[in-house]
Amino acid sequence: MKKGVTINGFVCKPSNNVTANDFFFDGLKNPGQIISPLGSVVTPANVLNITGLNTLGVSLARVDFAPGGVNQPHTHPRATEIIFVLEGELEVGFITTANVLISKTIMVGEVFTFPKGLVHFQINNGAGNAAILAALNSQLPGTQAIAVTLFAASPPVPDNVLAKAFQIGTMEVDNIKSGLASKY
Amino acid sequence: MKKGVTINGFVCKPSNNVTANDFFFDGLKNPGQIISPLGSVVTPANVLNITGLNTLGVSLARVDFAPGGVNQPHTHPRATEIIFVLEGELEVGFITTANVLISKTIMVGEVFTFPKGLVHFQINNGAGNAAILAALNSQLPGTQAIAVTLFAASPPVPDNVLAKAFQIGTMEVDNIKSGLASKY
Amino acid sequence: MKKGVTINGFVCKPSNNVTANDFFFDGLKNPGQIISPLGSVVTPANVLNITGLNTLGVSLARVDFAPGGVNQPHTHPRATEIIFVLEGELEVGFITTANVLISKTIMVGEVFTFPKGLVHFQINNGAGNAAILAALNSQLPGTQAIAVTLFAASPPVPDNVLAKAFQIGTMEVDNIKSGLASKY
Amino acid sequence: MKKGVTINGFVCKPSNNVTANDFFFDGLKNPGQIISPLGSVVTPANVLNITGLNTLGVSLARVDFAPGGVNQPHTHPRATEIIFVLEGELEVGFITTANVLISKTIMVGEVFTFPKGLVHFQINNGAGNAAILAALNSQLPGTQAIAVTLFAASPPVPDNVLAKAFQIGTMEVDNIKSGLASKY
Amino acid sequence: MKKGVTINGFVCKPSNNVTANDFFFDGLKNPGQIISPLGSVVTPANVLNITGLNTLGVSLARVDFAPGGVNQPHTHPRATEIIFVLEGELEVGFITTANVLISKTIMVGEVFTFPKGLVHFQINNGAGNAAILAALNSQLPGTQAIAVTLFAASPPVPDNVLAKAFQIGTMEVDNIKSGLASKY
Amino acid sequence: MKKGVTINGFVCKPSNNVTANDFFFDGLKNPGQIISPLGSVVTPANVLNITGLNTLGVSLARVDFAPGGVNQPHTHPRATEIIFVLEGELEVGFITTANVLISKTIMVGEVFTFPKGLVHFQINNGAGNAAILAALNSQLPGTQAIAVTLFAASPPVPDNVLAKAFQIGTMEVDNIKSGLASKY
Repeated sequence: MKKGVTINGFVCKPSNNVTANDFFFDGLKNPGQIISPLGSVVTPANVLNITGLNTLGVSLARVDFAPGGVNQPHTHPRATEIIFVLEGELEVGFITTANVLISKTIMVGEVFTFPKGLVHFQINNGAGNAAILAALNSQLPGTQAIAVTLFAASPPVPDNVLAKAFQIGTMEVDNIKSGLASKY
Repeated sequence: MKKGVTINGFVCKPSNNVTANDFFFDGLKNPGQIISPLGSVVTPANVLNITGLNTLGVSLARVDFAPGGVNQPHTHPRATEIIFVLEGELEVGFITTANVLISKTIMVGEVFTFPKGLVHFQINNGAGNAAILAALNSQLPGTQAIAVTLFAASPPVPDNVLAKAFQIGTMEVDNIKSGLASKY
Repeated sequence: MKKGVTINGFVCKPSNNVTANDFFFDGLKNPGQIISPLGSVVTPANVLNITGLNTLGVSLARVDFAPGGVNQPHTHPRATEIIFVLEGELEVGFITTANVLISKTIMVGEVFTFPKGLVHFQINNGAGNAAILAALNSQLPGTQAIAVTLFAASPPVPDNVLAKAFQIGTMEVDNIKSGLASKY
Repeated sequence: MKKGVTINGFVCKPSNNVTANDFFFDGLKNPGQIISPLGSVVTPANVLNITGLNTLGVSLARVDFAPGGVNQPHTHPRATEIIFVLEGELEVGFITTANVLISKTIMVGEVFTFPKGLVHFQINNGAGNAAILAALNSQLPGTQAIAVTLFAASPPVPDNVLAKAFQIGTMEVDNIKSGLASKY
Repeated sequence: MKKGVTINGFVCKPSNNVTANDFFFDGLKNPGQIISPLGSVVTPANVLNITGLNTLGVSLARVDFAPGGVNQPHTHPRATEIIFVLEGELEVGFITTANVLISKTIMVGEVFTFPKGLVHFQINNGAGNAAILAALNSQLPGTQAIAVTLFAASPPVPDNVLAKAFQIGTMEVDNIKSGLASKY
Repeated sequence: MKKGVTINGFVCKPSNNVTANDFFFDGLKNPGQIISPLGSVVTPANVLNITGLNTLGVSLARVDFAPGGVNQPHTHPRATEIIFVLEGELEVGFITTANVLISKTIMVGEVFTFPKGLVHFQINNGAGNAAILAALNSQLPGTQAIAVTLFAASPPVPDNVLAKAFQIGTMEVDNIKSGLASKY
């Protein structure tokens, strides 16, 4: 249990103890280490890293991509996201509630927006590495990586739910589940 | 183009023209007709049906299930949902951002909650029909049915994105895409 | 005093201790017992019953009515309400800030809306029982039953305030007060 | 129909046409004229008088009281209120959702708070005039004067609803209704 | 460290311990004592003085002015302000984000608005004292008096930042800094 | 006057006309041209450039600095800001409402936060160019550059207000005003 006066469940320092380091983070400085089979890695900079963000409604994240790397389709349940390409080029997209894919290839220094709560992805189709900086309007936006959410949750989502949803057999469901399990 | 003073893009009637029908809806009265291969149908009651809901931050929906019917994994980008079972029994669940499935079998008259923006589902494992009433804290919560969002958007989500995400081959991706396309 | 990290004054479980029961409630399953002289009873399903609703901004309530039963004019200071008729038929209404009554008789399966903070009521003019499910966009909407608020608060609202407001004598005020006191 | 770009249903001037008068109001300068049988009068200063308040979330009102005057029990569906006594002394109070009256006699220059949406009142039990300035955290808080809302709405709230609520006979209901109708 | 259940970092009393004094404040009753070289003094009435304001989103302040007194240019980072002149006359103004000064001379009983977060000021150019009541839509709006923020913070804002901003020499910056330091 | 259904005063396209370009911006790609005497330039990427940001509550900006360049003390009345250093190193700081300067020198890839509405600045004390990407939790955060707001508004802020605030003579006020006027 934390001690002290809390707001939003986070301890608030007495204002005379606050220092610049409460508003600072150096964890986005270098590319993250890519060990995922997806060929990408996300490094967040939110209220868990920067305590001064508490109640302030914004955060950042850095995503690094190997060639061919994918930041798989995912949602942020509590935030809109706007990205800036730090390096390389990426194909990015989101799907609307009318099931339309809005996508574009974006280059270094270009900006793209993923509206609140919608499924979105980025893929590095280029030959070199790529990286983006993402800004989100929540101090703790949360993430659901869709494939993992559906096929690798614990306990597992029932096979018959997934079979119906994807209109595949339960054996194919199990294959995807075991495929994902073997990779993570 | 709509005429008149608008708020949120919806026309606001002069207050002396408002009638009870602006706050009323009878479209949830009877079970929806189930024609989807999923064995379920959702009937919304939101600001598109009830103009008086504009700015008021709440809406309803009714979901009807045939035996074996599934309300496939989906999100509401702008709302929390709380359901009440009108008929039958259902297995319901949501997945947290820590990838834990929180699920339960619920009976007539029982209540369950799906936190804002998280992937959730319901399945009727019972022998008879089932139905729920869902309340959502948005006048227009929006819905993304995940399987369809990923595998049946138009234009399509690129195969290589889905292959990486689900760790399957692009041929399997195409099989799911064409399977879904043939059913809807 | 509660222990643990709190948000909104409610204890937040560590996320690995959360279970489905934190999002579940079975207290709306059966009609409430009607002992009030009003012939109705309200059973809430809010953050006090469902701890997982904390910060999520929605709740439910069930109201049961004997024949002739009334859910007296009341307000929810922190919520809009939308109702669905579970059983029977009801005359329902709210009064606008322009002092116009917006009312309608609604049947099983029909939906009606009571905008945020406005005085509203339901009455079962039918021959049988009636019941509604109410959804509200607050985890703890609060309720003020107007007659009781004015004539049965403790300590009492001063007689001269009520006499002026209702343009009646203080003896009539006292009669209403003692009448209400004898019934509750 | 209004012309121009609107926000919240109010026309927004192009910023280069904005003048100080869009943020100014002199209608609270003098005591309002008291003609109501209640012995009080409310003069609002909200977005309807001060167009520059649009989207800004605050407004004022002035209430003047003759000796014995009452600002009858009422609610603001969309705002908390905090008052400052400009002249005289007043007994003020609100009733909580636990049906407890919180009241106090306050003097010139003193401050009291009425939480969001709760029924509250002021009465001038002093020998002279009294006046308050009220601040509310909404550009258009709305008001429901309870007695008038219940007994003088148009069309009328049904007698049987009011009879049950106040536990009086319908004849007494009609007496209050006709009493109020004769005064306004 | 405070004890008890807290919301927003403020202790919430059990509702049965709440009294009228939790919603009351008499500190605005008399003019504040003017000792500042500015010839004005601000007395706040916010959640630090009125514990019942917690979560309610509104507060007051009183500002008293000697002849020639100035409430120096300042911002409230979390609130819009609307003022009412209690005594005297004042020249008041705010600057828009398009760098336009919107100003006016206002008299007793007149009202003016300062939109959220914008720099604003009041000056008493009259021969007598003046006073205003200010309402703000935050329980704790915060204040930044600009001159003091820039030239008297501790540790000091670097000279070269201020020299560039004001396009003056660092010696002039130091003169302003020492001038302010000698007065406060 | 704009045509079409508007939300927040911005035209909303029919959803079937939306394209990726509504969510895209390439104006941050290259360093802005520095012509200001401050040695810095701000390039915004907000709802005025990216129409798809409407209602979504986030935006970006790029700031480029020549050696010695300053992004002068300023506020965003409607947003918190979090920055990421794209190039070079900067001394950055904000002043709290307790008048404490919170500052730090930050390098490429490091992150710093400026809480909502507070005065903040950046200065490039390094030998080379510098650049930051800033994220703000508003689609249109607004900016007030303090020196210009106070000393170069049109019409001008009265000399006596500024003289009192800065505790300088009106001649020094006029010197600053004319100095700024000559540079912009």
